[in-house]
Amino acid sequence: MPQISERGTLMPASPIRKLAPLAYAAEDRGIKVYRLNIGQPDLPTPKAALDAIHNFDHKVLEYSPSQGFRSYREKLVGYYAKYNINVTADDIIVTTGGSEAVLFAFMACLNPGDEIIVPEPAYANYMAFAISAGAVIRTISTTIDEGFCLPKVEKFEELINERTKAILICNPNNPTGYLYTQKEMNQIRDLVKKYNLYLFSDEVYREFIYTGSPYISAMHLEGIEQNVVLIDSVSKRYSECGIRIGALITKNEAVRKTVMKFCQARLSPPLIGQLIAEASIEGTEQYSREVYDEYVERRKCLIDGVNRIPGCYTPMPMGAFYTVAQLPVKDAEKFCVWCLSDFCWKDEHTPADCAGETIMMAPAAGFYSTPGMGLNQVRLAYVLNKSDITRALFVLEKALEAYKKVEE
Amino acid sequence: MPQISERGTLMPASPIRKLAPLAYAAEDRGIKVYRLNIGQPDLPTPKAALDAIHNFDHKVLEYSPSQGFRSYREKLVGYYAKYNINVTADDIIVTTGGSEAVLFAFMACLNPGDEIIVPEPAYANYMAFAISAGAVIRTISTTIDEGFCLPKVEKFEELINERTKAILICNPNNPTGYLYTQKEMNQIRDLVKKYNLYLFSDEVYREFIYTGSPYISAMHLEGIEQNVVLIDSVSKRYSECGIRIGALITKNEAVRKTVMKFCQARLSPPLIGQLIAEASIEGTEQYSREVYDEYVERRKCLIDGVNRIPGCYTPMPMGAFYTVAQLPVKDAEKFCVWCLSDFCWKDEHTPADCAGETIMMAPAAGFYSTPGMGLNQVRLAYVLNKSDITRALFVLEKALEAYKKVEE
Repeated sequence: MPQISERGTLMPASPIRKLAPLAYAAEDRGIKVYRLNIGQPDLPTPKAALDAIHNFDHKVLEYSPSQGFRSYREKLVGYYAKYNINVTADDIIVTTGGSEAVLFAFMACLNPGDEIIVPEPAYANYMAFAISAGAVIRTISTTIDEGFCLPKVEKFEELINERTKAILICNPNNPTGYLYTQKEMNQIRDLVKKYNLYLFSDEVYREFIYTGSPYISAMHLEGIEQNVVLIDSVSKRYSECGIRIGALITKNEAVRKTVMKFCQARLSPPLIGQLIAEASIEGTEQYSREVYDEYVERRKCLIDGVNRIPGCYTPMPMGAFYTVAQLPVKDAEKFCVWCLSDFCWKDEHTPADCAGETIMMAPAAGFYSTPGMGLNQVRLAYVLNKSDITRALFVLEKALEAYKKVEE
Repeated sequence: MPQISERGTLMPASPIRKLAPLAYAAEDRGIKVYRLNIGQPDLPTPKAALDAIHNFDHKVLEYSPSQGFRSYREKLVGYYAKYNINVTADDIIVTTGGSEAVLFAFMACLNPGDEIIVPEPAYANYMAFAISAGAVIRTISTTIDEGFCLPKVEKFEELINERTKAILICNPNNPTGYLYTQKEMNQIRDLVKKYNLYLFSDEVYREFIYTGSPYISAMHLEGIEQNVVLIDSVSKRYSECGIRIGALITKNEAVRKTVMKFCQARLSPPLIGQLIAEASIEGTEQYSREVYDEYVERRKCLIDGVNRIPGCYTPMPMGAFYTVAQLPVKDAEKFCVWCLSDFCWKDEHTPADCAGETIMMAPAAGFYSTPGMGLNQVRLAYVLNKSDITRALFVLEKALEAYKKVEE
């Protein structure tokens, strides 16, 4: 039998998805699983988007342009302008999810062996895309005790060498919910300029900033316009994860032309998804406000709830809809597996048609590259309604109590 | 400004899509462009598929499983069984188009520097995906004079060395329309077995075989079950290119597990596309028969028509809906560009609302890796209706006449 590739061996299993088979198995046993692991909002997709599906009247489900429909890209120009991001339709390439935008950015900009500096914990799939492109992720640790703020410039410079080609940030951050300040963004800008690096900036959570602090896009930074590659996606802002529509945006024409070669190879982004995304841009102000208000409350519900559980701690996230929480366990991954495989809670509040209840969380170690970091942490997404979050945290507390005996 | 990657520089521009901007520009000038360049069927998508869109009743456009919906994979089992391809739902991974299946097969099975043997002319994007994965395509030339039949086993063995890890075939073939015989498939099977290679087999055109010859899938070959990775897509068989739904199918569990890590990194294939693809499997027998009959007639219309033009020649394709044709020009790419940039035909049959008519073809040199091969050839797709094909060939003949003076 022929061998699989070294890259395939190196590829990490997704910390978000690798426990999925256990969750499906628990559900097959009649257990209700509260999914705090994945950024899959339960909020309905806007009506304008669903209407676009029902009004679809093409007779042929044909290819679309490799760069995405111009009408959609032109609408996006207006959307970005509201955030003071000034781009033209030509600067925008529509991708199959933000995922493809990250992969193509790496493929177009980095050679095998090139290094990308990423503050950790970081969205785990960046590692997967880096491995796909043969690039190397070097992480700078941020810590739960410091609220995941950006390390000092010296920490970056310690890592910079002749193979360093890029800095990658996610702002607001997945998994920590951290929002970079103007001072931190200026620090990144200066590093990018000084060392002539790419700045890959994943800003898919810009809608979700809860502190009144300003959102500083990488696109706002002056003097590095040719270095910035913005990664975007409609998945989270319109609860449209399933349509797989993202974007790669850059003022750098050489990068765009190169990315376009990768785009042409995969022919086109999804047709119907683009129509849905385009329909979502207009007439969703009220939707966005309601969604925002809902997340504000969910955030409070989750964060207060976690910090109320003995031995648990999470800093207040400023954006996105995740938080990294520390649990009173030695190995959070083992605990997460145990919750799905061995634990279930049942009392008079358990829905009558369920054999019991449990929680699914994403072990946070998978978001760190530094061995030993985040071992007792999990990423929690506050994408469920408050009553489910409250109940999930109650079940978590019960699970932690029961697990004490298991760990002893 | 930071550099783009070497891989990005190496990436070929798509021979199918790189002339697209010229075609759009011609259309902006009011010219009707007959698109013979791309495998975008004009045939309507089946009603069952369009109904699936209109009946869509999810309230949240949520992620789907990374491997694709089980219900869809189970239906696919029945579809493949009709072709005597015996697989289980677990053997099937749903991908974002056949394109992603090719990329993930390369990523999972090949190390940078590993070689894949591919008969040329070949689907141009294989090269792009190989470059993405750092793999090297080594081509074996087939020729228009021999009707693009498979070269003798010695030709393969000349190329095989310690870096050779795979053979890649497309059957029925894009761009030539060639269908491999049982004898040719056995030859490939023996090579795969002898040298312990992967066999990547792209069989997205299995519906379109016009000669009564048997369709021999790589999955039918005995003794190499662990070596075969089947690439598939619904794009062509249901005229659903835009939904981006394909599949990677293999009995090799190690390959599947590795591919799944790449699948989890990109989260999920398109949601609505999967529902459309699933709906297309049932109740489309009559549709498939009608589509088949239509292509039989279009094939005759295109092939006879091309061979009737002085100086043109194309062998009879046995499957798919492409043919490679030789034109009486020195450089077919220049001619294709000229047709879009400088030429247009107008007579009393030109539609009244058009400034003129021209044709768009894919220069075939882009389907060969060997320098100098296919310079006077184009790939033509017979995806237009007969009246448009007839008119397009008339315009082609006029263009060739006019071009004589240009080339002189």
